[in-house]
Amino acid sequence: MSKSVKPVLAITMGDPAGIGPEVALRALADGSIYEQCRPVLVGDIGVLEQAMKFTGEDLKVNSVTRAEEGKFRHGTVDLYDMGMVDPGQYEIGRVASVTGEAAFRYVVKAIELAQSGEVDGTVTGPINKEAIHLAGHRYSGHTEIYAHFTKTEKYAMLLVEENLRVIHVSTHVSLRQACDLVRKDRILEVIELLNEACIGFAIEKPRIAVAGLNPHAGDGGLFGDEEEKEIIPAVEEARARGMDVFGPEPSDTMFSKARGGDIDGCVAMYHDQGHIPFKVVGFQWDAEKGQMKSVRGVNITLGLPIIRVSVDHGTAMDIAGKGIASPDAMLLAIEYAARMARGKEK
Amino acid sequence: MSKSVKPVLAITMGDPAGIGPEVALRALADGSIYEQCRPVLVGDIGVLEQAMKFTGEDLKVNSVTRAEEGKFRHGTVDLYDMGMVDPGQYEIGRVASVTGEAAFRYVVKAIELAQSGEVDGTVTGPINKEAIHLAGHRYSGHTEIYAHFTKTEKYAMLLVEENLRVIHVSTHVSLRQACDLVRKDRILEVIELLNEACIGFAIEKPRIAVAGLNPHAGDGGLFGDEEEKEIIPAVEEARARGMDVFGPEPSDTMFSKARGGDIDGCVAMYHDQGHIPFKVVGFQWDAEKGQMKSVRGVNITLGLPIIRVSVDHGTAMDIAGKGIASPDAMLLAIEYAARMARGKEK
Repeated sequence: MSKSVKPVLAITMGDPAGIGPEVALRALADGSIYEQCRPVLVGDIGVLEQAMKFTGEDLKVNSVTRAEEGKFRHGTVDLYDMGMVDPGQYEIGRVASVTGEAAFRYVVKAIELAQSGEVDGTVTGPINKEAIHLAGHRYSGHTEIYAHFTKTEKYAMLLVEENLRVIHVSTHVSLRQACDLVRKDRILEVIELLNEACIGFAIEKPRIAVAGLNPHAGDGGLFGDEEEKEIIPAVEEARARGMDVFGPEPSDTMFSKARGGDIDGCVAMYHDQGHIPFKVVGFQWDAEKGQMKSVRGVNITLGLPIIRVSVDHGTAMDIAGKGIASPDAMLLAIEYAARMARGKEK
Repeated sequence: MSKSVKPVLAITMGDPAGIGPEVALRALADGSIYEQCRPVLVGDIGVLEQAMKFTGEDLKVNSVTRAEEGKFRHGTVDLYDMGMVDPGQYEIGRVASVTGEAAFRYVVKAIELAQSGEVDGTVTGPINKEAIHLAGHRYSGHTEIYAHFTKTEKYAMLLVEENLRVIHVSTHVSLRQACDLVRKDRILEVIELLNEACIGFAIEKPRIAVAGLNPHAGDGGLFGDEEEKEIIPAVEEARARGMDVFGPEPSDTMFSKARGGDIDGCVAMYHDQGHIPFKVVGFQWDAEKGQMKSVRGVNITLGLPIIRVSVDHGTAMDIAGKGIASPDAMLLAIEYAARMARGKEK
């Protein structure tokens, strides 16, 4: 990518049977993203045309085989047409191997485009774990697919939503195992990943807070000793390396402070410690309709050689095809991928 | 308490060196609470007069030795003057044994008043654990003082804030110990305490959600087995006993649903699982001023023979004496204590 032009981003449609195609289309129909990047959609033409019917967004389509063929003009969708599925082959809102396979191939294509340098970053729509499994691919999600195809071993999940940026020491393990994984080296590793990421988001001197594992961050050793043994040494080492890091902080007030804008990045010790505040703030449940509304969060895999930002919501099969899914998270994901690509260029 | 009259509530000032006296006074200066209850303050006259200077709230004072001497009229503070401390004996914003002792005595007095039936419920202002310890009392907080003086063994902490009502299977223990305490019997106990409490709040058929311990509530046994072994059996037993209970729910989305009004009460498996969503929603950090603003949550001890509701914030020594502390949590605490007293009467 040359310095004078906007980054090219590959956006995957996600599972054709879910809300992914609709939110991708609605984000592309929102002119604002063309000010930040040059987007190319990865998916299927038939799926895209169906999403146009669902959403009422009537855009032109320009099929490309290479990013350089893109028009990058608001009103035209530049599409890598993968020839995977047609709407006649699957049912909206239903988990199936055919759509799982298509969604998987879109992701692999996006990774290849980024690895070859044809695009500057990737943004992923929601896939369905069960559908991916039905199609014979044993990954628990995007993160593992990216890690595999880029041969990455050290990575971490960062959740982003307005003022809240949360990285995790561990994610998909039991809470007991998560306690065991609270180790100085790993904590230091995620602090460094978070610090670098924040700099990539154009935050000059990131202020990073590290949560305690135990209630009240152990209350001076009264409840648990992981703070003394692992977390404090990691924080001290990070400070010695010149980073602006503090903690361990009681996790129940740390996230309020972060929301208030006082912290650029938070380190969570386990999955729910980071996911609870994130979803309580970013997700809103509509009790009347029995569904989540306004899901704004994005999920970034740090530590990869390529840029990958995803919406943090799922395929929402129950509302797929209704044209009501919000593109807010997709818009934020595109914004972050563009910021990261510009940061990398610098 | 006779059915035709409003409940009498004893309100303690909390630590004289903290924001307790100010928030109690500002709540009493708010006429709305007199529509719900007949409040009597427990504290010291000198401390109260000082709080009037700090807040600019100039109310009359009526010293009482028994609740029946109260005027219960907006504009006059009915006060049990405990004769513990004068403003000359301590410094605002400073932890000290003299104020710790005073705060402790106010609480003990409130408990006695409720036990004798002179008041229908108690509302507590914030105390400082360190000050209580300096005064020689080995309690980690109000809850333990109440449990001791009322000889209660089975109790649980309920946090309340608008739509969010969260009870805890365990609180002040390490996260590893909290995992061990996830046991069917205890879960069932807190479900029942929560169900009764919700009925006491005039919720006819409470809908209760129980969180999982592990991420994604264990994802069908992939991460941890506490859901299968302990939580599901407790939920099934509660349903067999006629309660409207469901779970285990992934804790990162459960609280969004609760905020949306779809759940009357939530069961959290450990301290931070319940406290994080509660404080992220109820506490707001003002980064410019470096302080929390708008702290609305209340804390109710369930399982006691008497009613006890507390503000969920602390003594906030850093802003004590400035007249800026918000009485929102105190107003909500009084409202809940009044609701519980009316519910008990029924």
